[in-house]
Amino acid sequence: MLIDERHFLDIKNTINQVVFIPDKQMNAILPFISKVSYRKGEYFTKAGDYQTHIGYVVDGLFRLFYVDPKGKEYTKYFNTQGSFVVVYNSILQGQPSYLYIQALKDSEALLINYLEWSKLADSQICWQIFFRKLTEQTYLEKEKRESDFLFYDAKTRYRNFIKDFPGLDKAIKQHHIASFLGISPETLSRLKKNIDNCQ
Amino acid sequence: MLIDERHFLDIKNTINQVVFIPDKQMNAILPFISKVSYRKGEYFTKAGDYQTHIGYVVDGLFRLFYVDPKGKEYTKYFNTQGSFVVVYNSILQGQPSYLYIQALKDSEALLINYLEWSKLADSQICWQIFFRKLTEQTYLEKEKRESDFLFYDAKTRYRNFIKDFPGLDKAIKQHHIASFLGISPETLSRLKKNIDNCQ
Repeated sequence: MLIDERHFLDIKNTINQVVFIPDKQMNAILPFISKVSYRKGEYFTKAGDYQTHIGYVVDGLFRLFYVDPKGKEYTKYFNTQGSFVVVYNSILQGQPSYLYIQALKDSEALLINYLEWSKLADSQICWQIFFRKLTEQTYLEKEKRESDFLFYDAKTRYRNFIKDFPGLDKAIKQHHIASFLGISPETLSRLKKNIDNCQ
Repeated sequence: MLIDERHFLDIKNTINQVVFIPDKQMNAILPFISKVSYRKGEYFTKAGDYQTHIGYVVDGLFRLFYVDPKGKEYTKYFNTQGSFVVVYNSILQGQPSYLYIQALKDSEALLINYLEWSKLADSQICWQIFFRKLTEQTYLEKEKRESDFLFYDAKTRYRNFIKDFPGLDKAIKQHHIASFLGISPETLSRLKKNIDNCQ
């Protein structure tokens, strides 16, 4: 599906917040962007897939999770509107994804062919800076999440979740939030009651 | 301390394995590289420090670890000869380090001023590519380590450690390896006996 003006303006604005890209360079990515709709429950990527595109969420919400050999799910992240969805080991190393990335509600994403996009970066420093900053940002989020698990208790991690993902607490199932926080749904429920009682 | 020809050749070769940097650009980093020696037990960075330099290990070995509020250590990585030591949240966000980075034996590192180095990258696409690839590589390692914990048992993780860090098993204390693998020293000892018996 071709993309409309509104969605292109949306991704342009987001990219320009990372680094300014001149219109000529920005327009060069248009031919390899397409729009895809996902019904609630459908997957952007499943473990084992070879993902060749970077996603950009124009509407909706995605959950990134692992499933261990015993079938237990571990929620790693939520991709909200205006964020990029990147399966790094697939696009950089051509390996199958470890991750599942699933729409938690009806969603729309722009899919950008990574190979074509990165070819532009071979000669354009502005695109190199964009890719560098995108990865740096993703790395910092991952590192922060790792250290938060060691330095903060579940209550503080829940409060950080509320701050980092405003509105998500009401929008998604509690067991997904519990999984993201690394606690049981029962613990999350107790913890929320506690916080409510303290207000 | 100024750096000698041999060490500059060493870092040049390592950088050129990531992306080719012409001699003129490579020489431009010389003025803001210095060499620092660390006695066994000394720190490249402690939690709370504002690290402004990227390290490059020319000799020796460093351990990266967190210490949680109860004083428990979590070993995250080992930086061996020929690798870069980067405290991302400090150099990118100007924040204090979460990490401790300690020499496990007498070591030498080149310290490169990040601000000066990244200024070169503002106008030179080759340095942008270098920083981009360095972060991508670090991100992929972190992601792999995270998924290894979910998908593999301790024995497989130990085998991967032997493969990823050849020779380190004999060179460092067993409780550091156990901490890296997320198991107790007793479990590591049992596991090694088991592997020895199977050979």
